[in-house]
Amino acid sequence: MTIVEDATAGRRDRKKRQTRDALVSAALRLVAERGLDQVTVEEISEAADVSARTFFNYFSSKDEALVGDQAGDSERVLAVLATVPPEVPALEAFRLALTPMLEEMQADSALWLLRLKVVAQNPSLLPRLVAGSVETERMTTEALAARTGVGPDHGYPALVTAVTGAAFRVAIIRWSASGGSLPLTELVDEAFAAVAAGLPDPRSAA
Amino acid sequence: MTIVEDATAGRRDRKKRQTRDALVSAALRLVAERGLDQVTVEEISEAADVSARTFFNYFSSKDEALVGDQAGDSERVLAVLATVPPEVPALEAFRLALTPMLEEMQADSALWLLRLKVVAQNPSLLPRLVAGSVETERMTTEALAARTGVGPDHGYPALVTAVTGAAFRVAIIRWSASGGSLPLTELVDEAFAAVAAGLPDPRSAA
Repeated sequence: MTIVEDATAGRRDRKKRQTRDALVSAALRLVAERGLDQVTVEEISEAADVSARTFFNYFSSKDEALVGDQAGDSERVLAVLATVPPEVPALEAFRLALTPMLEEMQADSALWLLRLKVVAQNPSLLPRLVAGSVETERMTTEALAARTGVGPDHGYPALVTAVTGAAFRVAIIRWSASGGSLPLTELVDEAFAAVAAGLPDPRSAA
Repeated sequence: MTIVEDATAGRRDRKKRQTRDALVSAALRLVAERGLDQVTVEEISEAADVSARTFFNYFSSKDEALVGDQAGDSERVLAVLATVPPEVPALEAFRLALTPMLEEMQADSALWLLRLKVVAQNPSLLPRLVAGSVETERMTTEALAARTGVGPDHGYPALVTAVTGAAFRVAIIRWSASGGSLPLTELVDEAFAAVAAGLPDPRSAA
């Protein structure tokens, strides 16, 4: 690829990302204002200044634009996990693997806080989210099984996946409750540290 | 109440429970066979040998008969939790509080395993289940906050609730995968023990 071609490809990718972000942002904003059933793909596209046809180049449905790219997020987290040396304990490895995504979420906090609000207000989005989570958990459990070298019947990888998912979710809810003002990475670090310590009662820790 | 009245009330309660159980069992069996959309309340009622009107004395919808009485289950768990002395650490108190329900599930394993299968096959039941879980988590978090004496902004009670919920769920999935042959209480005990130990890598435990 020549330098000119490279610059052109770079610009094209940047424009694509901008269009995608504009569609996600418009979808979340309109649905937060009016409710899921009161917003059409046409209205979202118009608000993002593109055609409905362009919308469908990026997303197969309104719901897909709203819930985010869980599969892409999981793949990125697992790709980072694979780079953490095997001697690092699973919990700590997982925390490290989540950090880049958490930093992105913090940098894009307005959009993420809106997404959390939209999901809380529209339970019909849940089956899609749960399906995504099931797939994420399956992939993560496999990665942890390979990492820790235990067999498929061992309860450990699934337990770590579910427990760290729960700790992550609690940190996200605290972050959302703070309106994004508490740093997400710190909230996640705190939750993971409590899990690694075996969740001692705050009384005994005092 | 006289002895005769007492016996009559006892018989009435027992018959009510039998009718309820028959409706739940028929609903789960038919939906497992045919899928959620292919089963009507009339068919469930007929299979349980009662009228559709009787069905609606017990449940407001087909979905409600399928997913179980989460609110009742949570209330019972929290009632037991309240009897565990405050000096018992939260995780252990929770494990003790869950035990009676786990024993009931094990005793009624055919029905519970069918319920897990039906939920896995019918994602449209998820919003109802998640709504129930949200309410259960809220009540549990409040009970743990009162128990541990920490303020509403402290992350501990919500973290323990979410993490123990995750450990419970993993144990249920293992139980289901074993076709109910592994004792549920042992699987939950094992998961809670791993959490209390801070989820050490199986390698370092070896």
